[in-house]
Amino acid sequence: MRAPNALYAQSGGVTATINATACGVIETARQARRSGRLIGHIYAARNGILGALAEDLVDTTAESAATIRALMHTPGGAFGSCRFDLSPLPQGRAQYERLIDVFRAHNIGYFFYNGGNGSAETAHQVATILPRLGYPVLSLAVPKTIDNDIAGSDSSPGFGSVAKFAATSLREAMADLASMAHSSTKVFVMEVMGRHTGWIAAACGLALPVGKDVPLLLLVPEIHFERKRFLAAVRARIAKHGWCAIAVAEGVKLRDGRRLTQVGCDGIPGHEQLGGVAPLIAAMVRESLKVKVHWSVLDYVQRAARHLASQTDVEQAYAVGRAAVTYALQGKSDVMPVIARTGDHPYRWRIAPAALAGIMNREKRLPRSFLTADGYRLTARARAYFTPLIRGEAWPPFADGLPVHAHLKLKPVTRRL
Amino acid sequence: MRAPNALYAQSGGVTATINATACGVIETARQARRSGRLIGHIYAARNGILGALAEDLVDTTAESAATIRALMHTPGGAFGSCRFDLSPLPQGRAQYERLIDVFRAHNIGYFFYNGGNGSAETAHQVATILPRLGYPVLSLAVPKTIDNDIAGSDSSPGFGSVAKFAATSLREAMADLASMAHSSTKVFVMEVMGRHTGWIAAACGLALPVGKDVPLLLLVPEIHFERKRFLAAVRARIAKHGWCAIAVAEGVKLRDGRRLTQVGCDGIPGHEQLGGVAPLIAAMVRESLKVKVHWSVLDYVQRAARHLASQTDVEQAYAVGRAAVTYALQGKSDVMPVIARTGDHPYRWRIAPAALAGIMNREKRLPRSFLTADGYRLTARARAYFTPLIRGEAWPPFADGLPVHAHLKLKPVTRRL
Repeated sequence: MRAPNALYAQSGGVTATINATACGVIETARQARRSGRLIGHIYAARNGILGALAEDLVDTTAESAATIRALMHTPGGAFGSCRFDLSPLPQGRAQYERLIDVFRAHNIGYFFYNGGNGSAETAHQVATILPRLGYPVLSLAVPKTIDNDIAGSDSSPGFGSVAKFAATSLREAMADLASMAHSSTKVFVMEVMGRHTGWIAAACGLALPVGKDVPLLLLVPEIHFERKRFLAAVRARIAKHGWCAIAVAEGVKLRDGRRLTQVGCDGIPGHEQLGGVAPLIAAMVRESLKVKVHWSVLDYVQRAARHLASQTDVEQAYAVGRAAVTYALQGKSDVMPVIARTGDHPYRWRIAPAALAGIMNREKRLPRSFLTADGYRLTARARAYFTPLIRGEAWPPFADGLPVHAHLKLKPVTRRL
Repeated sequence: MRAPNALYAQSGGVTATINATACGVIETARQARRSGRLIGHIYAARNGILGALAEDLVDTTAESAATIRALMHTPGGAFGSCRFDLSPLPQGRAQYERLIDVFRAHNIGYFFYNGGNGSAETAHQVATILPRLGYPVLSLAVPKTIDNDIAGSDSSPGFGSVAKFAATSLREAMADLASMAHSSTKVFVMEVMGRHTGWIAAACGLALPVGKDVPLLLLVPEIHFERKRFLAAVRARIAKHGWCAIAVAEGVKLRDGRRLTQVGCDGIPGHEQLGGVAPLIAAMVRESLKVKVHWSVLDYVQRAARHLASQTDVEQAYAVGRAAVTYALQGKSDVMPVIARTGDHPYRWRIAPAALAGIMNREKRLPRSFLTADGYRLTARARAYFTPLIRGEAWPPFADGLPVHAHLKLKPVTRRL
C-alpha cells in the first residue's frame, strides 16, 4: 500500500504566524515519514481550497529543511490563501466530486485546513461529505485568526502577535502624543482590525503600564458608541492630562447596530468605501473639541508585523500544526487542535482536539467583564488574560536592516486530471 | 566663578531617537562636569523654547544614570516638544529679553536646541541676538527630524529608524497582500509621512529584495502625480503579478502644485481634514480598476516605532548630542553637529560642526536620481544611500511583552522670576 499523501492549505485573512503553523505541519509530517509512519508527500494547495479544486498543488518536498524552518519567521501565507466557502449539499455536490477526483489522483489521505471559524466548516464538510461520497479522507482544521474569535480555543494563533504589535505601537505613539500635546496635537486615534469583535482593540489597553493613570479610551463593537458620552470622556481627559489617546476597532457600532463607518461622522452615509473609522472619530473630535488630532489606520501592517511577533503566539502556532499531524496519524478527523489554558500564574497551556461541529461558524465574543463599567478601559481580569499571549519576543533574522523571509520554490505537482 | 548651567530642549515633531540625543547631551555634560570642566547643572526646558520662555524648567540632576540611559530606547520627547518659532527682531524683542531674564536667573551658559531646520533658526537667534542684547550664551542646534531634510547633514537622526520601520512594515504587508490577491485584495496602499519631501516614501523601496521583480510603486511629492499614468502602472502590475503595492508620501502633489489631499479623488475638495492620501488613492484604484484595495496610514506609529529602531540611527542620535556638548565646551556657538558620510562600502561617518546660517530654513530635497525614470522605483544609487542608515537592530528591553520606556521624575527647577 502506497502511503497516503497529505494536503495542507491556508484560508481566510492571513497572520504573522500562519506560516509557523505550516512549518509545524510540514516538519512533523516529515519526521513521521522518516520514522516509518504511514504518510507520503506533503503537498500544499495554492490559494486555499481553490487550489485543491483547481488541482493547483505544490510539492513541499522540493523545499529544504532550512526553507521550511524559515517559515517560522515569515509573515503572509506562503502558499496563498483564499476567501471561499464550499456550498453545502446538494448544491455543492459537483465541488465535492471534483475534490474527490483531485484527492484520488494525488492519493491524498490527509487534509489540513488552516483557518478560522469559516474554514473549520470547510474542513468539516471535507471530513464528513467526502467519505459519504465514497472517498475516505481524514480532514482536520488548524486554527488561525488575528480576531481571536475561535470558539472553544482559549486564544487563536495569530492573535497574540497582532495584539503585541498594536499595544506596542500605541504605547509608543502615546509617548509621541504626550510630548506634542502642549502646543500641538492633543488627540491620537489608532484604528485596529476587528469588524465584529473588539479583541484587538481591547488588547491595546495593555499599552498602559499597570497602575498608571494614562488617558486612553478603548472603543469596541461590543459596546455601543455614544457620541456625547465619548466626547465628554475625551474632553475630561484632555482637561486632566492635556491629551487623550483612543484605540478603536474598525467595526465599532451605534446603538441601532449600524457601523460608524456606515453612517459617517454626522450620520452622513457613504464614507464606508473611502475610509476607516479612525478618520471619522478624528473629525468628530476635531470639530467638537477644536483640538488638533492625528490618526492612524494600521490595516495589513498590524497583522503582518512578524518583526514583533509574540513568542507565545509563535510557539502555539507551531504547536497546533504539529498536533494536527499527530492527531491525523492517530486516525482523528473532523477536529481542530485548540489551545486550552491550564494556568495563569505561571501561564500554562496545552493543545486538545475539539470537534469541528462545535466550532464552525461560531464566534467567541469579548467578555463584558474585560472592560470597565464605562466601557473605555481594561479590567485586571482582561490584563491577566491578555498578558501571557503577548509575552516574549520572537525576532526574525535581519539582513541589511530588514527582516529576512522564506522564499519558497513552490514546485508545482504535475497535474493528472 | 560659578560654572554655567546648560539648558537642553526638544522642538518640532519628535522621533523614535530624539531621546537618544538627550541621553548623549546629558551623559556627556555629566562626564565633563565630573572631570572638572566648566559646566554646572543640566536643565531641560519643558515643551521646547516655550518652557524656556515660561521658566518651566526641570533639573535632570534628579534623574538616575539608569534613567538617563533608558532614554536611549524611549520614543517621544521626554521633556516635551513644541511647534513655536521666535519672532525676528525688532518685533520679537520682548521674547529675547524674557529669555535673557530666565537664562540669567538660572545661570544658563549653554543652550542646546534639538530639532530640525526651523529649530536651527531658533538656536541661531539665541546664539546671535542674546549676546547682542548683552547676555553671552553659547547656543547650538542638535539635529533631529524624521524628514531627513536637514541641509548639510548626510542624514538626520530619526530618519533611519522611521525608514527601517516603514520599509519593514511594507515588506511584511506585501507578503500578506501576495497571499490574498488570488481571490481577494489585489492592491495595498501604505501612507507614510513627508509633506514636502519623499525621503520616507522612497526608503520604502528598500522593502523589495535586491534584484526581485516585485510590484511596488513609490509616490513622492517631488514627482507630480499623474492619475492616468499611475492607474496604467497599477493595472499593468496586477496583470503581470496579480497584485500591486503602493507607498505614498502624505504630501504627494498634482502638476499644479496642489496636494492630492486638497483636491480629493476626482477633484472634489474638502477631504483634507478628514483623511489622508492613502484612502484617496485606494478609492481611485478601486473605482477605476474594480479591484479590492486595502490601505494603511501609519502616522505617529511610524515615527514612534522605537521597537524597531536602526542601530545606525541610534548611534548617530547619541553622537550628535555628545558632539554638541563637546563643541560647546570648546566655545563653539551658532553651529549644529551634522553627519558627514566618509564612505559607502563599508559605510563610515563622522560628526562635523556646520554654521547654522547655512542650515536654517533650508530643505534638503530627495535627489531625482534616487528614483527611476518613471518615478516609481528606487535606483541602485538610492539603495546605496539608504541601506546603511537602516542597518542594525537596537531592540529596547521588554517586560510582559511590551517595550519598557524611561519614566522621568521631571523635577521642576524652582522659579526665580
